[in-house]
Amino acid sequence: VSDPRLEQLLDIEAIKQVKYRYIRCLDCKEWEEMADCFTEDAVSAYDSGAHAAKGRDTILGFLEDALGRTDIVSLHQVHNPEIELTSSTTAKGRWYLEDTVINPGEAAAALRAHTLLQGAAFYEDEYVKVDGQWKICHTGYQRTWEMQEPLSDDPERHLRSRWHP
Amino acid sequence: VSDPRLEQLLDIEAIKQVKYRYIRCLDCKEWEEMADCFTEDAVSAYDSGAHAAKGRDTILGFLEDALGRTDIVSLHQVHNPEIELTSSTTAKGRWYLEDTVINPGEAAAALRAHTLLQGAAFYEDEYVKVDGQWKICHTGYQRTWEMQEPLSDDPERHLRSRWHP
Amino acid sequence: VSDPRLEQLLDIEAIKQVKYRYIRCLDCKEWEEMADCFTEDAVSAYDSGAHAAKGRDTILGFLEDALGRTDIVSLHQVHNPEIELTSSTTAKGRWYLEDTVINPGEAAAALRAHTLLQGAAFYEDEYVKVDGQWKICHTGYQRTWEMQEPLSDDPERHLRSRWHP
Repeated sequence: VSDPRLEQLLDIEAIKQVKYRYIRCLDCKEWEEMADCFTEDAVSAYDSGAHAAKGRDTILGFLEDALGRTDIVSLHQVHNPEIELTSSTTAKGRWYLEDTVINPGEAAAALRAHTLLQGAAFYEDEYVKVDGQWKICHTGYQRTWEMQEPLSDDPERHLRSRWHP
Repeated sequence: VSDPRLEQLLDIEAIKQVKYRYIRCLDCKEWEEMADCFTEDAVSAYDSGAHAAKGRDTILGFLEDALGRTDIVSLHQVHNPEIELTSSTTAKGRWYLEDTVINPGEAAAALRAHTLLQGAAFYEDEYVKVDGQWKICHTGYQRTWEMQEPLSDDPERHLRSRWHP
Repeated sequence: VSDPRLEQLLDIEAIKQVKYRYIRCLDCKEWEEMADCFTEDAVSAYDSGAHAAKGRDTILGFLEDALGRTDIVSLHQVHNPEIELTSSTTAKGRWYLEDTVINPGEAAAALRAHTLLQGAAFYEDEYVKVDGQWKICHTGYQRTWEMQEPLSDDPERHLRSRWHP
């Protein structure tokens, strides 16, 4: 018989993987693959609920509205996982987010035009195991801080991306 | 009988959690909760010993002097844990720190006035297990680099935080 | 008999350690210690193959050309490890890179002169276990984005480093 704590370590690792996949899909703008990270009835409360959404499709729609434009580039990295298994199929997780978003164009969602955004936040997530696969059923974060400032107009500022090499 | 290597993985995970808690308390300015992360006789040697302190209360006092003001916001994120168990109740740990501090006001401790600080460092910590709980008994870091530069005066620079929404 | 999944967790942890060591050697400019992270026939394809090299010595030469100057400072941090063991001695790994490079001097390799570089990328690595030690045999990354902009000329910009305190 396997040690139950090994099962717990494996569950925690599987939960990390779904969060990493979500993040990768977000910054790579891979919206279809991202859908698989959420339950159909998932709920989001980004930025202390300022950007709240009910249902996977609504969450995905919000994210694609905010970051779907290919001139906008983003970095979301999550650290310091504090994952707590609350039953064999449910878990809570806290993560420390660092984000950078560069918007060289017009305003989009909460992003000002021609702006560099940098910030930090703590995520509070809930996860559920469905048919052996962990998914996000609740996600949200509370910012510690966020700074938006105008992008430099210096002609020697050079931005390239996967979408605009 | 449990595999001793599983015990080691669990100890390493518990050590990570105390470091994550310390970091969260630091950037959330939760000084009371932070106290629980240290032994009473803990020693710090931040920035190659430039900010050295003996005793938990002295360490906490230094950190609160440096970052306690609510107009100052910070991000400290630690990565690449190289944790080594040196006995069943002692351990060493190396971490790679990234930090950002925004000080829109007057100078404070090692922070210039009206400044954005960005930097990186390698932490060298020591931990001890007391009554089943891992705590930090020695912490310090050596910078690879640090840059401080004036914050933009652009009226379109917008900073908001948990303390000043 | 030990649970094979515990062996897998230990192998994954050992693979993380070689990546962390590589990163630490890169930002600390410790080229000799870095050699031990690679197999002799390792292949690199940094930046979608724009900086490709065959053989450990060629890879190390490229990195030292790019970042060896002590006035250049760098931060490379890798996150979100998705490590997959493909046999008892081979593995694949994906990592999410954040990098910052500050070059206050003349141009070097892909770095413009007097420049701050910030970027993000996804690494795709391959690892092999040789005499009980995991090593990198293939490494490369594809950028999501990279921004280079002129360093501030403000006399109040202060940069210090391990090499130029």
